[in-house]
Amino acid sequence: MSADKWCARTDLALETQESLKKANTDMRGVNFSEKKLDNGIIVSVVTIDSENAVRATGRPKGKYVTIEAAMLSEGDEECCQAVTRELSRELKSFVKAVCDKRIYAALVVGLGNRNVTPDALGPRCVDSLFITRHIVKEYGRYAFSNENVNSVCGLVPGVMAQTGMECLEIIKGVVSEVKPDFVVTIDALAARSTKRLGCTIQLTDTGIVPGSGVGNHRDGINHDNLGVPVIAIGIPTVIDAVTIVSDAVNASRENTAKLMSPKLNGMFVTPKDIDETVKRLAGLLSEGINMAFSNDEYDDYSE
Amino acid sequence: MSADKWCARTDLALETQESLKKANTDMRGVNFSEKKLDNGIIVSVVTIDSENAVRATGRPKGKYVTIEAAMLSEGDEECCQAVTRELSRELKSFVKAVCDKRIYAALVVGLGNRNVTPDALGPRCVDSLFITRHIVKEYGRYAFSNENVNSVCGLVPGVMAQTGMECLEIIKGVVSEVKPDFVVTIDALAARSTKRLGCTIQLTDTGIVPGSGVGNHRDGINHDNLGVPVIAIGIPTVIDAVTIVSDAVNASRENTAKLMSPKLNGMFVTPKDIDETVKRLAGLLSEGINMAFSNDEYDDYSE
Amino acid sequence: MSADKWCARTDLALETQESLKKANTDMRGVNFSEKKLDNGIIVSVVTIDSENAVRATGRPKGKYVTIEAAMLSEGDEECCQAVTRELSRELKSFVKAVCDKRIYAALVVGLGNRNVTPDALGPRCVDSLFITRHIVKEYGRYAFSNENVNSVCGLVPGVMAQTGMECLEIIKGVVSEVKPDFVVTIDALAARSTKRLGCTIQLTDTGIVPGSGVGNHRDGINHDNLGVPVIAIGIPTVIDAVTIVSDAVNASRENTAKLMSPKLNGMFVTPKDIDETVKRLAGLLSEGINMAFSNDEYDDYSE
Amino acid sequence: MSADKWCARTDLALETQESLKKANTDMRGVNFSEKKLDNGIIVSVVTIDSENAVRATGRPKGKYVTIEAAMLSEGDEECCQAVTRELSRELKSFVKAVCDKRIYAALVVGLGNRNVTPDALGPRCVDSLFITRHIVKEYGRYAFSNENVNSVCGLVPGVMAQTGMECLEIIKGVVSEVKPDFVVTIDALAARSTKRLGCTIQLTDTGIVPGSGVGNHRDGINHDNLGVPVIAIGIPTVIDAVTIVSDAVNASRENTAKLMSPKLNGMFVTPKDIDETVKRLAGLLSEGINMAFSNDEYDDYSE
Repeated sequence: MSADKWCARTDLALETQESLKKANTDMRGVNFSEKKLDNGIIVSVVTIDSENAVRATGRPKGKYVTIEAAMLSEGDEECCQAVTRELSRELKSFVKAVCDKRIYAALVVGLGNRNVTPDALGPRCVDSLFITRHIVKEYGRYAFSNENVNSVCGLVPGVMAQTGMECLEIIKGVVSEVKPDFVVTIDALAARSTKRLGCTIQLTDTGIVPGSGVGNHRDGINHDNLGVPVIAIGIPTVIDAVTIVSDAVNASRENTAKLMSPKLNGMFVTPKDIDETVKRLAGLLSEGINMAFSNDEYDDYSE
Repeated sequence: MSADKWCARTDLALETQESLKKANTDMRGVNFSEKKLDNGIIVSVVTIDSENAVRATGRPKGKYVTIEAAMLSEGDEECCQAVTRELSRELKSFVKAVCDKRIYAALVVGLGNRNVTPDALGPRCVDSLFITRHIVKEYGRYAFSNENVNSVCGLVPGVMAQTGMECLEIIKGVVSEVKPDFVVTIDALAARSTKRLGCTIQLTDTGIVPGSGVGNHRDGINHDNLGVPVIAIGIPTVIDAVTIVSDAVNASRENTAKLMSPKLNGMFVTPKDIDETVKRLAGLLSEGINMAFSNDEYDDYSE
Repeated sequence: MSADKWCARTDLALETQESLKKANTDMRGVNFSEKKLDNGIIVSVVTIDSENAVRATGRPKGKYVTIEAAMLSEGDEECCQAVTRELSRELKSFVKAVCDKRIYAALVVGLGNRNVTPDALGPRCVDSLFITRHIVKEYGRYAFSNENVNSVCGLVPGVMAQTGMECLEIIKGVVSEVKPDFVVTIDALAARSTKRLGCTIQLTDTGIVPGSGVGNHRDGINHDNLGVPVIAIGIPTVIDAVTIVSDAVNASRENTAKLMSPKLNGMFVTPKDIDETVKRLAGLLSEGINMAFSNDEYDDYSE
Repeated sequence: MSADKWCARTDLALETQESLKKANTDMRGVNFSEKKLDNGIIVSVVTIDSENAVRATGRPKGKYVTIEAAMLSEGDEECCQAVTRELSRELKSFVKAVCDKRIYAALVVGLGNRNVTPDALGPRCVDSLFITRHIVKEYGRYAFSNENVNSVCGLVPGVMAQTGMECLEIIKGVVSEVKPDFVVTIDALAARSTKRLGCTIQLTDTGIVPGSGVGNHRDGINHDNLGVPVIAIGIPTVIDAVTIVSDAVNASRENTAKLMSPKLNGMFVTPKDIDETVKRLAGLLSEGINMAFSNDEYDDYSE
């Protein structure tokens, strides 16, 4: 059975896995495991490692880690801190898997449109990163109290309607000049279920096709296209409008689209208080990334 | 038959009128007329003038003028200018109906949340208004090339989650200090139909209940509560998420709500390019209002 | 000797006190004390309590507390936290002096122009306040884990060029509706000396004349005009351009003005990295205010 | 006599030329001409075409066109339109000089820090450009009513403190991917004189050293470094703080620096209403550039 028919539009590998399971689809090559931490945090891992699994899921081969915490959406302070630490730990582990240098150079890219609130997550995360590359380059690592400091730079490429360029073109050009060891992208994602909005973080080593969650077709920001590994981090902040309806009436996306205004394509559903959510989550992401990149001893022990 | 059952959630009196007609509801006291202008512009007038009509529509007695232009959503330059002039003309006519002074003092209030893109219409419109009150007060009308200049001031009260206060409290306080002859509110509205998003302007003399389009309950910003007439101008930029689904499956809102995630309440649907739309429409509104308030001779002749 | 001649343009009572001392001016009625805390923090108190002192300083009678910490301008994390706690402690003490209720209602007003970076301190501080009034009003204090929660609301009135209204008019109107027990204003100030930019916090019970630091004349936001006590908190982020020159050449402001372009009036001097400074300080202020208003036990013990 | 001693810090070649003349410096290789247009607009041309002139002025060889209009700073509508047309005409002429294609591909780069008001000119100009590259690329020129449409793309690289990268690195990377026929940079400049703030536009074919006006040292964004011609457009919005003082006391910059706080280095002077000025000028620049790139017949005739 074709995945297209039943997989509602989602950027979360976890939701794709759930859909396939529900539909009794052939799952060879799609592996799944889950662990429960304190504070109600659930960390699940989906790996896609066969051509069959790629076809079934419509996703590239790779590893997808999801950190879920329902209380995150309520802004619970303690939960936020626990999720931040878990994000830092998972990111460190992804970095180790793609880069064997002890001290490295990372480029963090904040994807999305700063002027559309639920899409501003990436740009706003980069706004609060601890940027070190220019200081390391000019004064050396001794400029910092911690000599193990990594070189971190950040880019907010904007969206095609603003720049006339694919994100990939901009990032590719910058990577070829700046030559980071790897790229980390931050993006707002589309989920299938309202319950995952604002309380789920996905990390993957497959890179990302920007805007794929809401129906765009762009070239992927990934190792193949950039020549360096790409770790993609995302949090769902919207649901595709067609998905909302098809899920409610239990119909396929295609049949639903017929029921509805054609204008609904390219629309998204988001909560009214999305400004507060994006502000909080951009802060959480930047803190988790800063922690992962800081290389200080405390973190080394804690692993 | 109760209006509640069949009237999908909308801020547009025109859509309520359409729903009632479709449902063969008793329409006594709901009057409707329509004229077609050049450039594909349609101006329609709904008046609600009986208690029966108030019950049927769930709206206060008053006059609702709607300016529609499909090409507006595509940013057609000529169409924009024609709509701007029509808006100016209708606003002047509303002002004449509520204020008999030749030169008057107006307070324009930009409602909504500046940090949520589709809700930023009101604040961004006020950003581009031609504000004169402080200059008239300090230097007199002779400071302007046009001595007929009205006194215009502007307020962006923010939303309750930011201020802890009802908009009505803030506006009421400011009105009691500043004593304008009337208030004009600007707000982003919720429509029922995607086809009206970004291409429909509603003016009404009934004031507005802020956020009513997306399920809030606040006290009305109207003549009764402020002590001065209130002209409310709005453009739909979102659709209520529950409405999208109920319209697609042709069910009542109540039944739809049961089908769906409770989290869907308080969510809205909006297009991905809402940033461009809001920028363009805020510009159009401020230009139309500036034109209406300018009192220059050209406009007087053009009526 | 007239204070006007020698007092360079400053919003800091501490700098006025220093100027008077340097000029051997009669200082009766101007009291000064200073204490040094850990982390290089200096807390000084200037009180002005005679008509003579009012004339000499050009300031209203009252108490001015200044918290200085040179390392604050470098963003030292530990210093930031120590200053935040000291700010909270001083604000609590000001609140106790003006309001004898155990649980109170506060209105915090963010003065200044959000669109001019060094003037955005007040608005950005209010953006991050913990606003409780609407929740207390709708659900009662039991909605919070801490039942001692105070009722806090926030207002960003904008500046006259944007609104056409004096800040005082807007605040007065809102105070008359909302009836807080007292008002706290937050504003960016003008210092005389570059060394105080971004590392000095002034608290005073005299209220504030908005924009007074850069040559405007507005009515004071104070107890007399609002009918409730006003605690004004400010941090210098600019220096008046004429002051920079007059200090350099050791001339009076009047003589300097003659040397210079008349256009220099109404100009200000500010550092290139003012965006980072304002972001950090707005965060520090909101945190200190949130802490002061939280009424939790830890803080009570710590006093 | 060394130019350094007497040339106050300025980005305007016109001001350098004036200083040299005043100081009776050897002016061989510095050519100057001026024409007066209607509406009080003055267009002057400085060319620097010898090594001697390069040394005397501290500027690279090239052509500097300045459009001045005192009434621009007052926002005079008619003057704005005349300056916009003149800007468009001069830009077209620069484009013809560097690119012989009838239909071309341009990359416009908005330099500066979006979060510091006087430095936001470049980013805000790019926000309002008519971006066509992605549409031309996907649908061809027939997508536009005007088949002569050029391919225009836009980039806002941010500043080094935000990105950790030199602007040059980012632009170089993007140019190597996107391969425009030429680059146009937009930047806020530093003037020497308050009278030129906000009412002077400079165009040059020499490119630009970003931030050079306020004391930074960065690699030049120019033909040599990018491999394609660079046309730099700028408007002064600030004055270097040390320059303000040295001009007032008629001293050299070096002596002045001794008189003053070392912190004054890296500070700038700007007017209080800089938000309105930058908004208006960013609009003017984008309109002038859009006009120059539109290639429509009216403009062709008007030359």
